[in-house]
Amino acid sequence: MLEGYRGKLASFLASKGIEIGDRIRIKKDSLEVEGILFPSFSRDEDIIVVKMDNGYNVGLKATGADLSLLSKRKAEDTRKPQSTGSKGEVKIISTGGTIVSKVEYETGAVRPALSTDEILEYLPQIKDIADIDAEILFTILSENMKPDYWTKIAEKVKESLDKGARGVVIAHGTDTMSYTASAIAFSFSEMTGPVVLVGSQRSSDRPSSDSSINLYSSVILAKESPFAEVAVLMHGESSDTYTIAHRGVKVRKMHTSRRDAFQSINDVPLAKVMWTENTVKMLRKDFVPRGKENRMDSKFDPRVFLLYYYPGMNPLILEAIKDKTRGIVLAGTGLGHTSEEFETVFREFTKDGIFVGMTSQCLFGRVNMNVYTTGRKLLEAGVVPLGDMLPETALVKLMWSLAHADDVEGVKKLMLTNMVGEFNDRHNEQLFPRWYYE
Amino acid sequence: MLEGYRGKLASFLASKGIEIGDRIRIKKDSLEVEGILFPSFSRDEDIIVVKMDNGYNVGLKATGADLSLLSKRKAEDTRKPQSTGSKGEVKIISTGGTIVSKVEYETGAVRPALSTDEILEYLPQIKDIADIDAEILFTILSENMKPDYWTKIAEKVKESLDKGARGVVIAHGTDTMSYTASAIAFSFSEMTGPVVLVGSQRSSDRPSSDSSINLYSSVILAKESPFAEVAVLMHGESSDTYTIAHRGVKVRKMHTSRRDAFQSINDVPLAKVMWTENTVKMLRKDFVPRGKENRMDSKFDPRVFLLYYYPGMNPLILEAIKDKTRGIVLAGTGLGHTSEEFETVFREFTKDGIFVGMTSQCLFGRVNMNVYTTGRKLLEAGVVPLGDMLPETALVKLMWSLAHADDVEGVKKLMLTNMVGEFNDRHNEQLFPRWYYE
Repeated sequence: MLEGYRGKLASFLASKGIEIGDRIRIKKDSLEVEGILFPSFSRDEDIIVVKMDNGYNVGLKATGADLSLLSKRKAEDTRKPQSTGSKGEVKIISTGGTIVSKVEYETGAVRPALSTDEILEYLPQIKDIADIDAEILFTILSENMKPDYWTKIAEKVKESLDKGARGVVIAHGTDTMSYTASAIAFSFSEMTGPVVLVGSQRSSDRPSSDSSINLYSSVILAKESPFAEVAVLMHGESSDTYTIAHRGVKVRKMHTSRRDAFQSINDVPLAKVMWTENTVKMLRKDFVPRGKENRMDSKFDPRVFLLYYYPGMNPLILEAIKDKTRGIVLAGTGLGHTSEEFETVFREFTKDGIFVGMTSQCLFGRVNMNVYTTGRKLLEAGVVPLGDMLPETALVKLMWSLAHADDVEGVKKLMLTNMVGEFNDRHNEQLFPRWYYE
Repeated sequence: MLEGYRGKLASFLASKGIEIGDRIRIKKDSLEVEGILFPSFSRDEDIIVVKMDNGYNVGLKATGADLSLLSKRKAEDTRKPQSTGSKGEVKIISTGGTIVSKVEYETGAVRPALSTDEILEYLPQIKDIADIDAEILFTILSENMKPDYWTKIAEKVKESLDKGARGVVIAHGTDTMSYTASAIAFSFSEMTGPVVLVGSQRSSDRPSSDSSINLYSSVILAKESPFAEVAVLMHGESSDTYTIAHRGVKVRKMHTSRRDAFQSINDVPLAKVMWTENTVKMLRKDFVPRGKENRMDSKFDPRVFLLYYYPGMNPLILEAIKDKTRGIVLAGTGLGHTSEEFETVFREFTKDGIFVGMTSQCLFGRVNMNVYTTGRKLLEAGVVPLGDMLPETALVKLMWSLAHADDVEGVKKLMLTNMVGEFNDRHNEQLFPRWYYE
């Protein structure tokens, strides 16, 4: 394996039998470097990357250097991370992502893994709070998540709760965690316990990692929570004070790198987890309590499109994708608008049985298409206003609805039914965050 | 004119010579209502809407009612709202939108207007702070704004500054105000004074209207500001305390209805306007000062597309729109990702001379495509990371860049040049707003 190496250098390394993770020596002029061959991501094909014993990585021009193999990498850990099959109080389902990535210090490679053994090794305190059963379902980066996988996750959740788990933790990459949370939420009409999606923004090899606190908190929540809803749990602040469980259909990743990137939009989160005290503090009383059985229906039709409107958008673009879609979610401007040119297109789409729903690219607040003429014309063209639903949540709900209705009227009815709290009718001043400029 | 009326009722009203704004009487059973005929937006074709003298609107079933015309609506105001031609210190260019909408109490119709006379009539205090010249350039709702109009606005701005205005105010609908702000910003490489886009979230007939405070503040800012940049000025808080001028390329409408909907993303705003004291308080020192001349180049190529990535997106959708686009801005997940399936499509696009740039749907933070494998593969496929630029700003910049470069390398170079502060390299903890959940 020579990840990242190309051209002459890759051939040269191969010819010497050198692979990533092997211990090598490089001599060049008066310089001599010894260390482990690391993957290279340089644009320069001639750069060789070595992790030295002092922990630093160094990149050197290979041309003119004398390379020698000192020793092959250590044999890989062959333990197969599998479910232990124990009837744990808390089931952890791993799908991949930063939270379950283990950096192999020997090679620098990032390996997704989360067997029960490895969790207990990584976070031994967890066994003091719950009996854990962990299982690797997928090992994918969340940007590669797909509707088919949502169904597999939902099935595993049902199986786990049916077997008696008090709650299920889903370790997930943060990129698309809120989409998956919505998908699982729409898949269950009743659950015996909560589903807690948990991720991390910084991998466990970094001092600022949020992995262990988030995972620890998610286990507390899965076991102790009075609610049986789908939640996303992440850091509550950039410091390690507490974690927050957001309602899965009302949360969004709002920052590329902060540990408190996930925030509830247009709604109050479900709970805070005071992880230093092992307690859950509910932030709202109107949650769905634990049910008697697990009723699941997890089908999705991915023939949808999320159209983000902007000035100058060409209506022909919509015509071009018409035959590939059964439904569209618009992220319109302001209260739910597009330019009036689109009225004709939407009228044609809805007439031909394609659902067209409106959300706002403002994210906060709710659409109201009765205020201005443009909105009223879009309403007349059959565009369905989707209240304060997030564009992403609406899209996932549309995939679910298309798989559960025969015609556009049926889809519309499902889209407008408040299934799992995706609509919040009670907005107040406190739901909008505060910016401070001084 | 019988806006909103259809079918039998429309024909019946027409046969009686009744139009919107006319005074009518409706008798039905024991009920008798007198008032002004209002536009109807009911789905029920039989509903007639009347504004009564007490100010309330009432909707009545027309079938079986006895309708009579009492008097025709008052003749329309025939003053032509035009530029006064005076060499005002502050030029106000009106493009339409809520801020310049005047509700005619007689008819309920919303009429965009902002002649100098009307402004002074509406906001007489303005003449105490500046000599105003106002002009109506367009009267459109901002959701109908187009790249062609941006050029016309830029030309009018140049003309006004060249004639000696200390600053220009552009009254604009809030829906697409930040897109226009970016467009004007990219159109000027030097300006002698500021351009202040101003809008309002609530029309002037509502007690909670922000129209007058925002307009008043924009005039103070246009006259007094030490900077010559394009700014968006709106309420700073939901209360009337102060207004804020955001850098036009770093601002976004973040709420559908709040008066403080506009917020700076990834940057500190330019200034606060303490309108009760007629003063401008700068929030940063690194602004662009007033220049010696006005250098404008305002061309846009609208053959772009803003693609908002989501799990399950079909790569064929991109193929379908390929022939309609010269460039794409992606709103990817997290640090700048899409599923790996898209790698091939993007490689093909960039090879065929279509620019593909990456922003993040998180909005806050910056893309970094070197952290995970997916990002690195997209980089190799030719996708260009666009730092902390907002997706909308990047899209407008792409339209400008496509009109100013011959090939994809030229476009890339322009896209990566920090022209007017669209990239901010100095992020800090304070730029992320705070959510409070208790």
